[in-house]
Amino acid sequence: MRNIVRVNTRTGEIRVTPCSEDELRWGGRSLIAHLMLREVRPTCDALGRENKLIVASGWLGDTVVTTAGRCSVGGKSPLTGGVKEANVGGEPGKHLARLGLRALVLEDAPEKPEPRVLWVGKDKCEILSAPELRGAEVKETFDLLRRRFGEAIAFFCIGPAGEMCLGAAAIATTDRTGAQARFAARGGLGAVMGSKGIKAIVFDDSGAHPERAQDPEGLTEAGRELWQILHDDPKTQNRHDFGTPAVLSICDSLGILPTRNFQTGHFEEFEAISGERVADLIVGRGGEGERGLLCVRGCNIQCSNVFPDSQGKTLVASLQYENIGLLGSNCGIGDVDEVARINHLCNQVGVDTIEAGAAIGVAMEAGVIPFGDAKGAKDLVQQIGQGTTLGRVLGNGVVITGRVFGVRRVPAVKGQAMPAYDPRSLKGIGVTYATSPMGADHTAGNALEMAKTLDQKKPDGQVAISLRLQVRAALLDSLGVCLFIRPAFVKNPALMARLLNARYGWSLTYGDVQQMGLKCLEMERDFNRLAGVPDERCDVPEFMRTEALPPFNTVFDVPREEMKRIWDVKLPEGVF
Amino acid sequence: MRNIVRVNTRTGEIRVTPCSEDELRWGGRSLIAHLMLREVRPTCDALGRENKLIVASGWLGDTVVTTAGRCSVGGKSPLTGGVKEANVGGEPGKHLARLGLRALVLEDAPEKPEPRVLWVGKDKCEILSAPELRGAEVKETFDLLRRRFGEAIAFFCIGPAGEMCLGAAAIATTDRTGAQARFAARGGLGAVMGSKGIKAIVFDDSGAHPERAQDPEGLTEAGRELWQILHDDPKTQNRHDFGTPAVLSICDSLGILPTRNFQTGHFEEFEAISGERVADLIVGRGGEGERGLLCVRGCNIQCSNVFPDSQGKTLVASLQYENIGLLGSNCGIGDVDEVARINHLCNQVGVDTIEAGAAIGVAMEAGVIPFGDAKGAKDLVQQIGQGTTLGRVLGNGVVITGRVFGVRRVPAVKGQAMPAYDPRSLKGIGVTYATSPMGADHTAGNALEMAKTLDQKKPDGQVAISLRLQVRAALLDSLGVCLFIRPAFVKNPALMARLLNARYGWSLTYGDVQQMGLKCLEMERDFNRLAGVPDERCDVPEFMRTEALPPFNTVFDVPREEMKRIWDVKLPEGVF
Repeated sequence: MRNIVRVNTRTGEIRVTPCSEDELRWGGRSLIAHLMLREVRPTCDALGRENKLIVASGWLGDTVVTTAGRCSVGGKSPLTGGVKEANVGGEPGKHLARLGLRALVLEDAPEKPEPRVLWVGKDKCEILSAPELRGAEVKETFDLLRRRFGEAIAFFCIGPAGEMCLGAAAIATTDRTGAQARFAARGGLGAVMGSKGIKAIVFDDSGAHPERAQDPEGLTEAGRELWQILHDDPKTQNRHDFGTPAVLSICDSLGILPTRNFQTGHFEEFEAISGERVADLIVGRGGEGERGLLCVRGCNIQCSNVFPDSQGKTLVASLQYENIGLLGSNCGIGDVDEVARINHLCNQVGVDTIEAGAAIGVAMEAGVIPFGDAKGAKDLVQQIGQGTTLGRVLGNGVVITGRVFGVRRVPAVKGQAMPAYDPRSLKGIGVTYATSPMGADHTAGNALEMAKTLDQKKPDGQVAISLRLQVRAALLDSLGVCLFIRPAFVKNPALMARLLNARYGWSLTYGDVQQMGLKCLEMERDFNRLAGVPDERCDVPEFMRTEALPPFNTVFDVPREEMKRIWDVKLPEGVF
Repeated sequence: MRNIVRVNTRTGEIRVTPCSEDELRWGGRSLIAHLMLREVRPTCDALGRENKLIVASGWLGDTVVTTAGRCSVGGKSPLTGGVKEANVGGEPGKHLARLGLRALVLEDAPEKPEPRVLWVGKDKCEILSAPELRGAEVKETFDLLRRRFGEAIAFFCIGPAGEMCLGAAAIATTDRTGAQARFAARGGLGAVMGSKGIKAIVFDDSGAHPERAQDPEGLTEAGRELWQILHDDPKTQNRHDFGTPAVLSICDSLGILPTRNFQTGHFEEFEAISGERVADLIVGRGGEGERGLLCVRGCNIQCSNVFPDSQGKTLVASLQYENIGLLGSNCGIGDVDEVARINHLCNQVGVDTIEAGAAIGVAMEAGVIPFGDAKGAKDLVQQIGQGTTLGRVLGNGVVITGRVFGVRRVPAVKGQAMPAYDPRSLKGIGVTYATSPMGADHTAGNALEMAKTLDQKKPDGQVAISLRLQVRAALLDSLGVCLFIRPAFVKNPALMARLLNARYGWSLTYGDVQQMGLKCLEMERDFNRLAGVPDERCDVPEFMRTEALPPFNTVFDVPREEMKRIWDVKLPEGVF
């Protein structure tokens, strides 16, 4: 992974350049931060010519380490106005890394974006006209791409939402089965891709040979140790059996399950949409339903699922916790089949389910449709795809929806919708939402796993916890691995340095690695500051500080001044 | 003017407090900056409980100096996210000042805003229920207020746009004739008033006696000198005869008249909507039409008008340049009667014509309706008042409209629409748009008057000019006088210090006064910085730096770095 491919989407010019020494230090999320800070004017229009869409391999992208090969997609976000990285599984990251590419950078923008395909192969990269893809939904796009380019390839594509450059548009991809639509969902990067006039990126790693690690045996050994720790961890089996929906019952009991536009943290119908229920239905209904599916080749957790209807026919793949939280309880919808259908429609349109679910919740509060109206919610998502005025409002996310309909209870930080953890009773994540350069993003540092060791209803200690979690997240996103392998690094932090040293011939201590995580966050914050997204606006929404959240009647009370000083907190030594 | 009345709009509590020494130093716009910086958390939700709506008398509010008695309305803007002052003529400023009130401060916000009236009299101030005003348009509101409270009073009110808290909502008032709707239009302060559940403020200065000046003779003398300079200035007669529309032909010839969403600076039908044409029609049609009308008692310019239809019946009062530029040429509409009708509808709904005209222009570019479609434009404005989804989008201003419809050519700075001077060929105003704490606002420092002395198509010297103009504007807005009396201070800068010294017993030099203007801007910038509206985002929209503007094919090329350093520029000594 020593090259960067740069594609000028206006002129069609394509340049392959070897990475500089500086660029070789970074991977995935941290490489995006590095490139954005150096190459993109921070105050540029996110959907204009100066922004770039970057697809980057993680440090371990071309290894067989478990879950490695996830991919970072980034650029300036049309929602947050700052730098954004969205991390995604599936096949493209594996291809990108095997092709020896550290990053693929889409530059400039055409006068009038038309649907085109960017084809990336071993010795060739080209932009191809693809008028047949205009307005195509995600599944249709995948079908058409397979028909044109064959099966053994990997895709990124956008749906109608991305083509319309709607702020909540996501970038879709598939795993190896081709059945599952996965998304680089957050921050509106699908709109950035749409603005470049690229409907799809097709990766074909045929004939490519991944680069050899500097110390192959060391890498194998460390990788095996990682695998073993995960294998022995009881959480791995739970994740395999129930996937991310496993946390729904836990979140409800903690009083943090967003319900009816974050008005309460407990949903009276939570059992009907819980992880246990989802798993039971998948097994009971059979047919095309499956659980414990692969997302990235070589993953030994396999937490994904295909959720079937009562006839066994696929409703959506996969059904995840955030989708259920935002499109289900947050919209007052307790029918899991309906939630799956709304989720599927979001996937087809190519829109972030978190942003869409939050926007629909706000629209429900405004009375556009009532809470609990699944039929109405499906219609709203379809309107996003059709580009009606209402659809365009919703498709631009929760903040625009709140502005248009005059709703004051808008669950967002820095322009981006909040995931399915209400920070009033999970204060550590509130600090992350408020201070992360990524805006409200649970993958940027989720305190849920700390709920047993630190009272999340109290403000004390949450700032330090959040910093530790944010550095963790920055490192995992830079490695190109799944957040779910963190238990291995918690148990053995040195493993991370060993993996990097074996792959690259470096001689890092874990302390050095921690500093690289911190540096990633620092580069992102520098970009944001220069973009005019300053620390002054780092806070949870005002209503969360004044409206008590049932059932525990908590408000968010971590002092703003303490949060502003988060970057001065000292990281614990030797602790992941 | 030694008291501040504070009204808690949630509890109904009303407190009258004497001004502190510090507060007594400031007036109008500068008092708003002072109070906002000290009392309002800059990052608060502009439509939430922590924002305040401030109505402030200018320094000379209770004098008979010509045009004095204009009024400053301010608060945190829902559009810019920073502090905003909108300056307005009409009667309320006179009443406020005669009542001895330096400011009226609306604090907190009710749970559910209901239409209420705030009544402000000599020894009493109270909140009255007014359900009959719910949803009433501006004219109907004035009629109902007159019926309830009598004729000899002054009003502020909002229309349906303000009640819905739409970001472009304005605050309406009347002059003494009661015929003319004037507006504290910019920055969405009507939405802030709506969020406080105050549909109208009624001022009754019966029985009140204005405070005596410290040096009444000195004041009379300086005031007379001011009056005489204006009287002898040929611009005064021109303004009396043609009003603000006089500049339309000039702007067209300079190539800065916004046409079809700022795509060109020349409108082929400009003569049909010019100031000369407007004046001719008013005289020729007769009937209710009038020109050279009073806005503030004691003004010796009298630039206002009532514009009649072909039958002599009032179409709108008054018809101003910005309205014609934004609702006319910017929408490709060359029929001045239709422009007047659209303007009237905006007045009825209670929405800023600049913001609405810019939003309609962007919607036209998006294809919602075609350029030139006056009937469609009227329908769109009516939809704002009806609160349809499309109406709410437009009513939230040009940036939201651009986001929703995916338009990249969005004429706005810091969230606020650009007035009718394209900065590509009037570069001094571009620097003001970019750097002013007020966002894109022509009254914050308009370089049009410099067009004869400094080539406005060249970037050189524009930063220094803009600073000088911005200090001027801050001072005039703090005095509570009209920008049109500036020729008197240009001729004799010392007059400003003389007026202040005579009124307050101060002993300021003109240099001291200049420093107070600078300090006003500094307080506003401090608020904005703390609010997260930093200097990093100070620039004209990206398209203005890349798209050449016909007919002179200019781009905006004042270097960003030079603009950022505007506050380090030294003001010329002794020059207004």
